[in-house]
Amino acid sequence: MKYCSACGAPVSRRIPSGDNRHRYVCDSCGTIHYENPRMVVGCLPEWHDKVLLCRRAIEPRYGLWTLPAGFMENGETTAEGALRETLEEAGARVEIVDLYSLINVPDIDQVYLLFRARLLDLDFAPGEESLEVALFDEHDLPWEQLAFRTVRKTLEHYFEDRRRGRFPLHFDDLDRRS
Amino acid sequence: MKYCSACGAPVSRRIPSGDNRHRYVCDSCGTIHYENPRMVVGCLPEWHDKVLLCRRAIEPRYGLWTLPAGFMENGETTAEGALRETLEEAGARVEIVDLYSLINVPDIDQVYLLFRARLLDLDFAPGEESLEVALFDEHDLPWEQLAFRTVRKTLEHYFEDRRRGRFPLHFDDLDRRS
Ligand SMILES: [Zn+2]
Ligand SMILES: [Zn+2]
Repeated sequence: MKYCSACGAPVSRRIPSGDNRHRYVCDSCGTIHYENPRMVVGCLPEWHDKVLLCRRAIEPRYGLWTLPAGFMENGETTAEGALRETLEEAGARVEIVDLYSLINVPDIDQVYLLFRARLLDLDFAPGEESLEVALFDEHDLPWEQLAFRTVRKTLEHYFEDRRRGRFPLHFDDLDRRS
Repeated sequence: MKYCSACGAPVSRRIPSGDNRHRYVCDSCGTIHYENPRMVVGCLPEWHDKVLLCRRAIEPRYGLWTLPAGFMENGETTAEGALRETLEEAGARVEIVDLYSLINVPDIDQVYLLFRARLLDLDFAPGEESLEVALFDEHDLPWEQLAFRTVRKTLEHYFEDRRRGRFPLHFDDLDRRS
């Protein structure tokens, strides 16, 4: 951020009075530009003993496999966002079962909210952001070609939980790398 | 948003190619300025049969009672944010028990994440954003002077759950008013 979105003047990075964090502050109109974490919402679509994954057609992690998920948009609920991303990326219609995985990724200011979901039919097809969409069971899943640590962790929980026959909500914080 | 934060030129509101939503797009450098929902994180601090509330010293809802909560900041986890807000607004040290309430407020692009928490001592005191901080049981709680629907809903769940002796995570979507 270099310029004020309210007045177009340059911003500087400083601690506003009464605050204790560095913010972008407009030198001209005084607007403080707060920045907050974003939510990534998505689904873990199930079909019998398989789960649906998408192979990414975009950066980052082009060509790697992921669960259908993306940034939550204004005006929607977390579940609505998860359904939208699943339809957009995988062309897949699902019914949400439950929130399954809440993962903090403080290094990149993201919080993942992934829902367990039941795939309603097999008429899925890659959207513009996916190269392919496919169903995998635990053993043929491309574990070495997963796009994100959040996705790996959620899938690890999932197959462990399947053996136990119960699917509690999992909370994870990804390690800070810095 | 009127000006591009990357280059300072005016922005216009339109649907970028390949997208299906209106965004602020820079007419000069082409930057698309996405806007996403924010998380409000906070605690429901318990002390025996009482809960801690703060009376707001700021707008909106000046003078009304609320749970200690505020916008999650970059670089922190949801639980860290909830602890920070509880310390800032109520001067209260708590230990988080569990996530208790996840409430979508799509009308104002917010998601509330409220944690049940155990108050560690009684040395709390209002922070700059609070007029007073106090403990209430169900019957003396200022039900008619609560600041937010999210807080009311969470407190209603809480006292009902206390009677049942179990505290599952509650999901709510506040009605769209428009
Ligand atoms: Zn300005
Ligand atoms: Zn620009």
